[in-house]
Amino acid sequence: MAVLGFNRYGKAEVRVVRVSRGTGPDGNDELRDWNVSSSLSGNLDAVHLSGDNSAVLATDTQKNTSYAFAKTLGVIEPEAYALALAEHFVSSQEAITRARISVEDYGWQRIGTGGHSFVRSGQQVRTATVVHDQDLGSTVVAGVADLVVMNTTNSEFWGFPRDRYTTLAETKDRILATEVTAQWRFRSATGSGRDYGQVYARAGRTLLDTFAGTYSYSLQQMLYTIGEKILATVPELCEVRLALPNKHHFLVDLAPFGLTNDNEVYLAADRPYGLIEGQVLADDAPDAGLAWT
Amino acid sequence: MAVLGFNRYGKAEVRVVRVSRGTGPDGNDELRDWNVSSSLSGNLDAVHLSGDNSAVLATDTQKNTSYAFAKTLGVIEPEAYALALAEHFVSSQEAITRARISVEDYGWQRIGTGGHSFVRSGQQVRTATVVHDQDLGSTVVAGVADLVVMNTTNSEFWGFPRDRYTTLAETKDRILATEVTAQWRFRSATGSGRDYGQVYARAGRTLLDTFAGTYSYSLQQMLYTIGEKILATVPELCEVRLALPNKHHFLVDLAPFGLTNDNEVYLAADRPYGLIEGQVLADDAPDAGLAWT
Amino acid sequence: MAVLGFNRYGKAEVRVVRVSRGTGPDGNDELRDWNVSSSLSGNLDAVHLSGDNSAVLATDTQKNTSYAFAKTLGVIEPEAYALALAEHFVSSQEAITRARISVEDYGWQRIGTGGHSFVRSGQQVRTATVVHDQDLGSTVVAGVADLVVMNTTNSEFWGFPRDRYTTLAETKDRILATEVTAQWRFRSATGSGRDYGQVYARAGRTLLDTFAGTYSYSLQQMLYTIGEKILATVPELCEVRLALPNKHHFLVDLAPFGLTNDNEVYLAADRPYGLIEGQVLADDAPDAGLAWT
Amino acid sequence: MAVLGFNRYGKAEVRVVRVSRGTGPDGNDELRDWNVSSSLSGNLDAVHLSGDNSAVLATDTQKNTSYAFAKTLGVIEPEAYALALAEHFVSSQEAITRARISVEDYGWQRIGTGGHSFVRSGQQVRTATVVHDQDLGSTVVAGVADLVVMNTTNSEFWGFPRDRYTTLAETKDRILATEVTAQWRFRSATGSGRDYGQVYARAGRTLLDTFAGTYSYSLQQMLYTIGEKILATVPELCEVRLALPNKHHFLVDLAPFGLTNDNEVYLAADRPYGLIEGQVLADDAPDAGLAWT
Repeated sequence: MAVLGFNRYGKAEVRVVRVSRGTGPDGNDELRDWNVSSSLSGNLDAVHLSGDNSAVLATDTQKNTSYAFAKTLGVIEPEAYALALAEHFVSSQEAITRARISVEDYGWQRIGTGGHSFVRSGQQVRTATVVHDQDLGSTVVAGVADLVVMNTTNSEFWGFPRDRYTTLAETKDRILATEVTAQWRFRSATGSGRDYGQVYARAGRTLLDTFAGTYSYSLQQMLYTIGEKILATVPELCEVRLALPNKHHFLVDLAPFGLTNDNEVYLAADRPYGLIEGQVLADDAPDAGLAWT
Repeated sequence: MAVLGFNRYGKAEVRVVRVSRGTGPDGNDELRDWNVSSSLSGNLDAVHLSGDNSAVLATDTQKNTSYAFAKTLGVIEPEAYALALAEHFVSSQEAITRARISVEDYGWQRIGTGGHSFVRSGQQVRTATVVHDQDLGSTVVAGVADLVVMNTTNSEFWGFPRDRYTTLAETKDRILATEVTAQWRFRSATGSGRDYGQVYARAGRTLLDTFAGTYSYSLQQMLYTIGEKILATVPELCEVRLALPNKHHFLVDLAPFGLTNDNEVYLAADRPYGLIEGQVLADDAPDAGLAWT
Repeated sequence: MAVLGFNRYGKAEVRVVRVSRGTGPDGNDELRDWNVSSSLSGNLDAVHLSGDNSAVLATDTQKNTSYAFAKTLGVIEPEAYALALAEHFVSSQEAITRARISVEDYGWQRIGTGGHSFVRSGQQVRTATVVHDQDLGSTVVAGVADLVVMNTTNSEFWGFPRDRYTTLAETKDRILATEVTAQWRFRSATGSGRDYGQVYARAGRTLLDTFAGTYSYSLQQMLYTIGEKILATVPELCEVRLALPNKHHFLVDLAPFGLTNDNEVYLAADRPYGLIEGQVLADDAPDAGLAWT
Repeated sequence: MAVLGFNRYGKAEVRVVRVSRGTGPDGNDELRDWNVSSSLSGNLDAVHLSGDNSAVLATDTQKNTSYAFAKTLGVIEPEAYALALAEHFVSSQEAITRARISVEDYGWQRIGTGGHSFVRSGQQVRTATVVHDQDLGSTVVAGVADLVVMNTTNSEFWGFPRDRYTTLAETKDRILATEVTAQWRFRSATGSGRDYGQVYARAGRTLLDTFAGTYSYSLQQMLYTIGEKILATVPELCEVRLALPNKHHFLVDLAPFGLTNDNEVYLAADRPYGLIEGQVLADDAPDAGLAWT
């Protein structure tokens, strides 16, 4: 006989753009450009087993609420927005005991002198994910995605085991490039006067500085070092998870054309790619609870 | 102080095409078109903490092994291929205690009469994921992705709660469309004479038949019904997980143009979309172990 | 001094789904799933030079019209729909002298027995593009895209020039795979009783049969042969344009692992790819006019 | 009877990364990250009609040549690289009379202090396309793509015609957002001491400044104004082509929730989108020849 297990439902990829008129420096407009996804869980057996929707806050309503909260909350940090939205769904709906809100935040930079013109940055996407549970409280995970970085030198890879299927040559000088997805967990969901934007800036700067400043023997070592440095620099955080695809740059063999290639010309490959995933924790990190669900 | 937590690494998206010459019916060529990803875990502290690669089977070697096993194993089911590859990495590498292999299988249909010509199907992607652990053994999860289905009627949605933010009208007749991602877990990893291809065919047919044959009051109900029917039809399986985005088809208001729209003309929307996720289990399902990691 | 040159504007990617209730065989529902783009030209200097919109039929109106025509025209062929829509814009708007309508048509196959359930095919996208000009009349181009085909043998490539930069080995047996984009131009835009669906079926079948049945020495030869056969088989057409990316399948060197590879194991590459483009014409083809603009 | 018409072939999307060690300011590394496509035309009847490859410089050779030229030419502007490569193919191959080279250039910014670390910019892609013909010489088109810009105000849209299908309300204040694809044609292909990078910087700055500084009544007017200003600012150019999708930001109706929305909360839509295309020419622009083929 079948039984219902884990389930959740919601509205994914609600594109919310919030403009605040004249509230920025020098009376400039301020801007938030978000992709918001909500997901609710709770006492939802009836809808699965018999199609009874009396506990199902419509995903259309979740979308409406995302827009309404953008109005009432104004131009705030995505973590704070996600916390408010998650708490709302749980507190206002009897059947809903848990909400997960995730936000992708797209950055824009000012152009021109009028205070109302912007160019989308494209360098990276800022992310925030909140889970709020009626009994267990809230967790906050934030991070960055789509951030492509490269070291043109100071990267080696050697000393790995050689089995029957190993053909890779060892190297003492290669390009190291990756597209960083990083997520950092906050020790606590709230805190008086927490400036989430400032945490994001510090963690992001540490990430770039560590990538640039680390002499690498493997991407795993780079992953751990980045996680360690972020935890050391940003005490509000207790855990960092990283996914680092190895964006391979293969040295092109130019010898058939009578040319040398002293680490100058590379083929940037798409697939396959190495993929290094890992977690770095503060030794006193509290239990993650529902943070990563 | 920082400590290393969960970690794994591997080669993602190795594109393997295996042709078997003349082994098909009537001496036709047979074909497998796969996207293979491998991921290894084990005693990997040294590489993270000090860049010592002595335990790190290179991802390039993993790629080579994927191709070599395609040669030696021939045109087999992706689940069987993944099992063999996972067991190889764990058994052959001292430091590696766990391997995860996932395969996307792209279907092709024969064209022409020569026995060597094919057109790519595009209707769906078959998936298979194996986790093999030195101590815990193997788990097999298979499934389907990118499968887009639609019922043009026999779908209602009403009786949902109305709060301050609810504007959605109730409906007794709507289009129900979704892009199915389904994954089903096998009760046991192996079994004498198991025909994985036949399981895939049965589960897939049940999925389509159930979607077509179910009068729907919500996508959650559809999700549960599909899971229940697959479990009832395919006793080799003990769990089904489904992710069903609601591909909204909105009735276009033609009244301003003096036209009626009696469920005839729809706007197919991209974003946002409802997203329904859930798990259906056999009541005697064994523990999932590492199957979903 | 600057002057305005060629210009056009419109609404791109209007997602129209048209259901016809019970009009199919056995009272089944019929379905069209389209992505419609419209583009208008004419006396549009004023809007460019001074922002005067008095000649600019809003792109929102173009969208509305696309939906309204789907209602009034019913489930018809995309070419016929595009012709009607293009003529409407030109005949109804004083300033608009030319309209271009393009349609992507996504195929669905029936599932179940209720007559209202479908699965999206995914094998290929049908395309249709109409240009209607006030003075020059209409042109119709139709075709297919995203159609991936493969011959596992019967393909050679040798005899090409070898210069300083040539390293490619000659081969007498390779996989030939491509993702076909084909467009065929009709001799005339209209014709009493033309069955566009039947033309599409004949041209598409000829394309697949020719690909499967041609022993290939180069993709250029395949391109020309396909074009020639389509013109020979479908007299309504006078020109075929093809873009054939060479989806390279590289034989993997298994020798380092002590294995042979007698055309059995291939690496399917993404980038770079050969790209072969060409045009095949009936020797009595009328001038193309605006067909390809 | 069928005849061969226009044709060309080549290698698309060759991913070339060129590092120049220590040649930058302060001995820093310099970097070019390119996606190179080549396409050749000429006396290619034989290969199409009979599969005779004696005139077909293999696309693999074209790829090799792209890498070899990256080595010998060093870190130069993409326009100069494309010119050299195009001329090479035509001058070195008897049968090849025309070559088209296009380059996508991905920007990177320095990070860290070591002179070898970079983050990919993502704001825009720089493009360059050269056509070199044995008889007609060379043309150079350059430009920018994927550049997303927004004005949060100073945009109106009204005064458009209202027909039976028009429902759009007039507005005196809307968001204007677009993803710019711009291409500019050089008056002449070469010129002593031309600094292509400086032209790119000037044209790009003019584009952003004009977008930010123009009070808009329609996207067509914005298109023309941008083209006009670029031509006025960069005398090396004689033509600008722009494609400006209207990235619609729809004001969300918050009234049902008892909230006002005074241009504060928007839905960012994906599809459909307005698409405005146009060409602005210097009144003394030389004939475009093959530039846009």
